[in-house]
Amino acid sequence: MEKTLMVLDKINTPEDLRGLSAEEMNLLSAEIRDLILKKVNTTGGHLGPNLGMVEATIALHRVFNSPVDKFVFDVSHQCYPHKILTGRKEGFTNPAKYHTYTGYTAPEESAHDLFKVGHTSTSVSLACGLAKARDLIGGKENVVAIIGDGSLTGGEALEGLNNAAVLGSNIIIVVNDNDMSIAENHGGLYSNLKLLRDTKGQAENNFFKTLGFDYYYIDNGHDFNELISVFDRVKDADHPVLVHMHTIKGKGLHEAEVDKEHYHWIVPGELDKKPVAVNAIRKESYESITADYILDRASKDSSIIAISPATPGVSGFTPEFRKKLGKNYVDVGIAEEHAVAFASGLAKGGAKPMLAVMSSFIQRTYDQLSQDLALNNAPATILIFWGGITGMDATHLSKYDIPLICNIPNVVYLAPVNKEEYISMMDWANSQSAHSVVIRVPFTQVISTGEKDTTDYSKINKYQVVESGSEVAILGLGNFFHLGVKVKDALKANLGISATLINPHFISGVDEELMESLKANHKLVITLEDGALEGGFGEKIASYFGNSDMKVLNFGARKEFTDRVPLEELYQRYHLTPELIIDDIKNCL
Amino acid sequence: MEKTLMVLDKINTPEDLRGLSAEEMNLLSAEIRDLILKKVNTTGGHLGPNLGMVEATIALHRVFNSPVDKFVFDVSHQCYPHKILTGRKEGFTNPAKYHTYTGYTAPEESAHDLFKVGHTSTSVSLACGLAKARDLIGGKENVVAIIGDGSLTGGEALEGLNNAAVLGSNIIIVVNDNDMSIAENHGGLYSNLKLLRDTKGQAENNFFKTLGFDYYYIDNGHDFNELISVFDRVKDADHPVLVHMHTIKGKGLHEAEVDKEHYHWIVPGELDKKPVAVNAIRKESYESITADYILDRASKDSSIIAISPATPGVSGFTPEFRKKLGKNYVDVGIAEEHAVAFASGLAKGGAKPMLAVMSSFIQRTYDQLSQDLALNNAPATILIFWGGITGMDATHLSKYDIPLICNIPNVVYLAPVNKEEYISMMDWANSQSAHSVVIRVPFTQVISTGEKDTTDYSKINKYQVVESGSEVAILGLGNFFHLGVKVKDALKANLGISATLINPHFISGVDEELMESLKANHKLVITLEDGALEGGFGEKIASYFGNSDMKVLNFGARKEFTDRVPLEELYQRYHLTPELIIDDIKNCL
Repeated sequence: MEKTLMVLDKINTPEDLRGLSAEEMNLLSAEIRDLILKKVNTTGGHLGPNLGMVEATIALHRVFNSPVDKFVFDVSHQCYPHKILTGRKEGFTNPAKYHTYTGYTAPEESAHDLFKVGHTSTSVSLACGLAKARDLIGGKENVVAIIGDGSLTGGEALEGLNNAAVLGSNIIIVVNDNDMSIAENHGGLYSNLKLLRDTKGQAENNFFKTLGFDYYYIDNGHDFNELISVFDRVKDADHPVLVHMHTIKGKGLHEAEVDKEHYHWIVPGELDKKPVAVNAIRKESYESITADYILDRASKDSSIIAISPATPGVSGFTPEFRKKLGKNYVDVGIAEEHAVAFASGLAKGGAKPMLAVMSSFIQRTYDQLSQDLALNNAPATILIFWGGITGMDATHLSKYDIPLICNIPNVVYLAPVNKEEYISMMDWANSQSAHSVVIRVPFTQVISTGEKDTTDYSKINKYQVVESGSEVAILGLGNFFHLGVKVKDALKANLGISATLINPHFISGVDEELMESLKANHKLVITLEDGALEGGFGEKIASYFGNSDMKVLNFGARKEFTDRVPLEELYQRYHLTPELIIDDIKNCL
Repeated sequence: MEKTLMVLDKINTPEDLRGLSAEEMNLLSAEIRDLILKKVNTTGGHLGPNLGMVEATIALHRVFNSPVDKFVFDVSHQCYPHKILTGRKEGFTNPAKYHTYTGYTAPEESAHDLFKVGHTSTSVSLACGLAKARDLIGGKENVVAIIGDGSLTGGEALEGLNNAAVLGSNIIIVVNDNDMSIAENHGGLYSNLKLLRDTKGQAENNFFKTLGFDYYYIDNGHDFNELISVFDRVKDADHPVLVHMHTIKGKGLHEAEVDKEHYHWIVPGELDKKPVAVNAIRKESYESITADYILDRASKDSSIIAISPATPGVSGFTPEFRKKLGKNYVDVGIAEEHAVAFASGLAKGGAKPMLAVMSSFIQRTYDQLSQDLALNNAPATILIFWGGITGMDATHLSKYDIPLICNIPNVVYLAPVNKEEYISMMDWANSQSAHSVVIRVPFTQVISTGEKDTTDYSKINKYQVVESGSEVAILGLGNFFHLGVKVKDALKANLGISATLINPHFISGVDEELMESLKANHKLVITLEDGALEGGFGEKIASYFGNSDMKVLNFGARKEFTDRVPLEELYQRYHLTPELIIDDIKNCL
């Protein structure tokens, strides 16, 4: 049974906001906050950013006329209030529909959403395009980008601001300044934002004004009078405007206001639990292995330095870890391009940088990997987290890091299959100065052999034959090595074939000598990779054998954007179960 | 016989600069300018940027102690004076050695060069890494990044500045402000740089100060007193410093000072010619075809808009073209990420954007192509110029656009082989709203059939069979279609084989129906692509046929950074001549 909501029940479109009294808007804010807390506590999701944007979103939708006026939410972590106000409240009021709508803006859901967005720092440039299109076509609507202070430091956002300022017509950039990125902010810009907050926008030295923006300041982004008054003033401006709005991340939930990082994104049930000390229930994970490794190494070598581009939690870089490392830890803020070039400079300067980046976000650094890092053979170590086929939303698919990285010359891209290999690869990467090394951190439960891995990784592109057999050879890469073991067993059980099992270790090259030797007593090579097939590892093996009688089957993900498709369904679609693989092998032999 | 150089003859290392009188430094500047003019007029190269940096480079090397102190030259277009002063003057005094040194910084040439650099906007981040490494290791040297005003607007530079400002120790950023990018500057930042120049650095509102830098202004970057005095003051600073230095691009050559864009980079012999009106000797090229097409379309449709990220000359966007297009042309400055997102916003807003980018620089936009453009199926048109295997320096290789772009879902990447196909593909791209389209502009002499191309490109991944044959099928992609024709003829002449010749048109997908049909009477498929093989087009064909008896040979470039290797040598190395291809086919059949 759904609860009666005094105000929200009356709000079906943004227009319905116009007649609300001040009291009703405050009541509506409370109702929306309550819904967000319940929903996110059930499904998991972005909490802090949404709680902070409740009043501002109501005010924006009251003053502007969406979807004629166009809102672009940066990274769209903060779009839940917007969704609730634009016809999608059932996704929050009705638990049965909690999964109906995505956690990001999605044009297929509503005309009020202009873009599918999940990466940061893109809103200003996208909005510039909408505004310029309007000018060419002869429209009159407002174009409004809403961007958090954390996202401002991404290169694309800064490029966008520089261009937005000279657009010469209406564009309104609302900077939601809650003094936080996912973790704390980093960079010189934030001292200026603080100065502006401290002076209520009056300081002479103003980052946004240096770019040429007409600047407005909102001191209390939870006060409807102030919000509406400023939005009313800037509406229909005939020139670029920047509204700097101070809000509180996590507003309305005490714990989230206090520990902004922890409550940025929460897991289901989080709000029902007593706060648990980070280490009390700490289980070993590849994140904890990474952090422990770096702490241990740094205790012996002061040139070790860990780097995160604003996502320390993903790589096990807890607040405690960061404190322990001190000057040997740098969070560069949302600035992946800088992070890679910085790591390259560090390595060339004689330090031992270890940069941790999510698969999905390394996409922002192709040119830095190529030009700043690989072309200079800078011996930095980059750790890619969460690389693999997932059931995540379309904006955070993590299957493209292999095609992205493995085709860049000079980069050694490694795929460990267990804890010992992972540690051994980090050891090797840190002990050599000839190669830029990227390691795809296993995205599985921790698997440990208990025995030290003594592989010599300086033998570039040397694969490991784990089991010698005949007829079929299985190349099980990284996360999918374990699938390879299952396929081997199933081949024996089903077809009586004693297959060769190979752990390639190297994603970025072909072990030509080993491949050549397979020709003697194998008819088929199968490749298994936990990523997109096109441009990936397996295609190189297929190309290698193109001039021979060897058959090759490549298993991995198709080139497509999938949106919250359950992993099991994807495995069926891509034939990534032992049964389906055996079927394909049967058809081929 | 080499000319005697009164001052330069005494300068073998930077140390030799310390004893020079003011008069000698001015004489040295004149000598260096003269050498640069002669050398660049003979070999071609970057002229304007180097002429502008002569005095500043002398002053930097006199004050700082390179290579202990470390200089990082952004994009390194301006490093000729640096090379002359650091042991490589013979590359400028001796015409026989004009080609001994690259046009960019190159660590293999000299300890005074820290990085191989040719893409813009990377110096600040690289310098941050060097400075942080110094701090970890316990060094005391100065780290100096030298960056032009044009490069400042690239996202990586802005990310770098934001981080450099909070480094907490010595880093000196010298902004060489000559009020120009390759073409004129674009963006709000430049109004602030002008304000700072106009007020001799005194304006309260100061972009660099908002980030937290200790700021110094040099009004005349060609005056040794001023240069040395400021560099002396900032040397050994214990905190981040920004020196804003005003120079004149092309300084000392009247024509270059007046027409800064034209003299940014010149071809051999340029300085001996009388100035020629742009259109007087205009020959048809794919650049002129592009410009003419856009002008024609824009005259009929006001929503057509041409975009360049600071490289208008590369795509035929001459000053005249830009003037004619007016508000339908936007140069976003050095800001490729913004350019792609801007194009996506324009397309979603109903305009018809046509963005022109060099192959080498599209590398800066993988994530924008994926997230801002393709995920949103924004029907923008992106034109890739200079895509192909070249004998260029390692920083501008143009063979990676195929692996970069063709593995992104939803993007339709097209490869026209002649003028008519190119025009027809642009027509199709602009007339549809279902796909993000990228076109690899032919990088060959113009080939014209004289007959309108009527191919229906909405049939995605439908290849064209140009000639039906048997035994061998040749897939000649884009620029290499014409190589395919030669191979076909040679196959007939040498082996009596009537091969099938296919023009794939689509780089980004496999025509599975056609490939399947080849199995009936073909034994071998060969693919020819003018780009890097790994992650590219041919590997997809090899993977497709992996489960069959069809043999596949992929021809293209190896994954490697090559540096000014003559194209003929690369064609030999990669087996890209009809003769070598025929040999490989013989070995395979």
